[in-house]
Amino acid sequence: MNGRIEHIRERMREDGLDAVIVSDPTSIFYLTGASIQPFERMWLLLVKADGEDVLFANRLFVFGETGLNVDWHSDTDDAPARLCSFLRGVKRLGVDKVFPARFLLPAISSGETGACLYDVTDGMRIVKDERELDLMRTSSRINDEACAAALASLREGMTEKELAAAVAAEYEKRGASGCCFDTIAAFGANGADPHHETGNARLKKGDSVLLDMGCYYQGYCSDMTRTAFFGSVTDRQREVYAVVKEAADRAKALVRPGVRFCDIDAAARDHIAACGYGEYFTHRLGHCIGLADHEPEDVGPVNTHPVREGMVFSIEPGIYLPGEFGVRLEDLVTVTADGCEVLNRLSQELAVLQPE
Amino acid sequence: MNGRIEHIRERMREDGLDAVIVSDPTSIFYLTGASIQPFERMWLLLVKADGEDVLFANRLFVFGETGLNVDWHSDTDDAPARLCSFLRGVKRLGVDKVFPARFLLPAISSGETGACLYDVTDGMRIVKDERELDLMRTSSRINDEACAAALASLREGMTEKELAAAVAAEYEKRGASGCCFDTIAAFGANGADPHHETGNARLKKGDSVLLDMGCYYQGYCSDMTRTAFFGSVTDRQREVYAVVKEAADRAKALVRPGVRFCDIDAAARDHIAACGYGEYFTHRLGHCIGLADHEPEDVGPVNTHPVREGMVFSIEPGIYLPGEFGVRLEDLVTVTADGCEVLNRLSQELAVLQPE
Repeated sequence: MNGRIEHIRERMREDGLDAVIVSDPTSIFYLTGASIQPFERMWLLLVKADGEDVLFANRLFVFGETGLNVDWHSDTDDAPARLCSFLRGVKRLGVDKVFPARFLLPAISSGETGACLYDVTDGMRIVKDERELDLMRTSSRINDEACAAALASLREGMTEKELAAAVAAEYEKRGASGCCFDTIAAFGANGADPHHETGNARLKKGDSVLLDMGCYYQGYCSDMTRTAFFGSVTDRQREVYAVVKEAADRAKALVRPGVRFCDIDAAARDHIAACGYGEYFTHRLGHCIGLADHEPEDVGPVNTHPVREGMVFSIEPGIYLPGEFGVRLEDLVTVTADGCEVLNRLSQELAVLQPE
Repeated sequence: MNGRIEHIRERMREDGLDAVIVSDPTSIFYLTGASIQPFERMWLLLVKADGEDVLFANRLFVFGETGLNVDWHSDTDDAPARLCSFLRGVKRLGVDKVFPARFLLPAISSGETGACLYDVTDGMRIVKDERELDLMRTSSRINDEACAAALASLREGMTEKELAAAVAAEYEKRGASGCCFDTIAAFGANGADPHHETGNARLKKGDSVLLDMGCYYQGYCSDMTRTAFFGSVTDRQREVYAVVKEAADRAKALVRPGVRFCDIDAAARDHIAACGYGEYFTHRLGHCIGLADHEPEDVGPVNTHPVREGMVFSIEPGIYLPGEFGVRLEDLVTVTADGCEVLNRLSQELAVLQPE
């Protein structure tokens, strides 16, 4: 892990910065292995060009050895003043985008230190190493199993919230540490709202069932969506499903290093549009994911960046027909040397679940 | 609600500020009634001395009429640049403590605008008006009922997580919109850790049961703790319980406008110490609460501020005996003209629950 901090140091020296502050707790975990939810307390990593790094921590925090020099403070201390005392001689300071005013304004108040946005850690986190990929594979395997089990538990009259609770229980059984976002369970016409808030609708025969779910496994997120049909499926539902499935397949087939995010988005979007459903695919095709469920870089129409080996993102086309139903299919993929590996193994083939 | 924004404007004029930015989504809800979870998107209220206020919102946000001028942006827009365009002529800008670097640094980049920390909204939120107090009473009534029902559901072999799930289900039945913090359910010796992470321990006869829980009702939080005994109670448990109960009663009896937070803390702490358990009461006596479960101002040994009518805070003394058990009793109180009103109605008398 310390290689990661050294990478930041090399980059900041190239960019002429004297120091960098990392304040996103997930990035601090990525760089140090220490996992803290600081809430309003100060929890910062100061990386200095001269190598004199400091981790600022409240005495209430509990974490293991990081190999870093730790500057401890208590609730009754002036924590920002402690930070300032380490910034003497720092003229150019890079800070991450979430660094809050209550620390940033004191840090630059002397007039000696000038601050700029500097998010090199975000850029590092987006490309996963082999250990990280293994954890993400496990997170998605748990997600596959929990999804299959939750769908198999569907019964007539069950509520969306009960389905979401079933998902949580399946995660628990399999060693995940919880949901990495609120599970979306949407029955029938509720599935036509891409961000439907899971509610008390009850499942009835003929409903579509859209289930969008993800868990944490050792800090790493998974994220998948399946749409199934309960009891029966109409010809129109079959048609829409096939269009979404083909859109997902076309996008996956295009992924390899160097291809632009926007072109992957277009592979799916153009197919949906060609089938006449363009106006019903209302969101980007996907998003990067890792220690957070949404990481920088989206798979959308305006992102011209190329994908690189080791990136992990979702491919999740959908068609949403207001008042009728919605279909979304989502898998995670990682970019390999010559294509992509799909992290999810649960089939995306159309499934009609039979009520008992 | 607009009276609240006018109050900020009066204060900022007195303090010589040209504009104030509120970025805490809970504070924006408090000032405008609009409730948004913006995640990384820009959602800011700009209050200007000249009265030309602006609410900055992403087009993906959905909220009702606020009476404010809204400046809309899309994901593909340069949102910080939109903010900057409204800051021309602003020399002294107050920002709240959570305002992130990704907006703050652009806002001051022109060199024309100087920023300082300015948290007048926090100070306003800490004193509740009658409408807010009514909502907090309802939130605590739901909490009382859910706590009683959850404790009544205890069965031998039940896990802590199952008890926490029972709490969530009781909230759901009663119209709360969910937990305002992770429920702490701690059986037996687990109760000796004040921040025990609810786990898979199973309830057995003779266990103490510590349950710390709170819900949201129309945005307002509740927070209470009860400690009960399952099947039997020892003399030592009775003794410790009586000390904690008396500490809570003494603290409540002292509350009235003008009394210092530290003196309320001392009323409980001194009693516990006099009974020989001082080293086992390891945290502050309480914290303010409202739209967030922890609001500024704590009831602790070093806070010399006086309490004011309309403040709401917890009184939660505890004694934690490592390897044995813990007892904590927590109610919310609001300061009245001549004393305090306890928002919780569920008895704090010692209860021994009988297994079926």
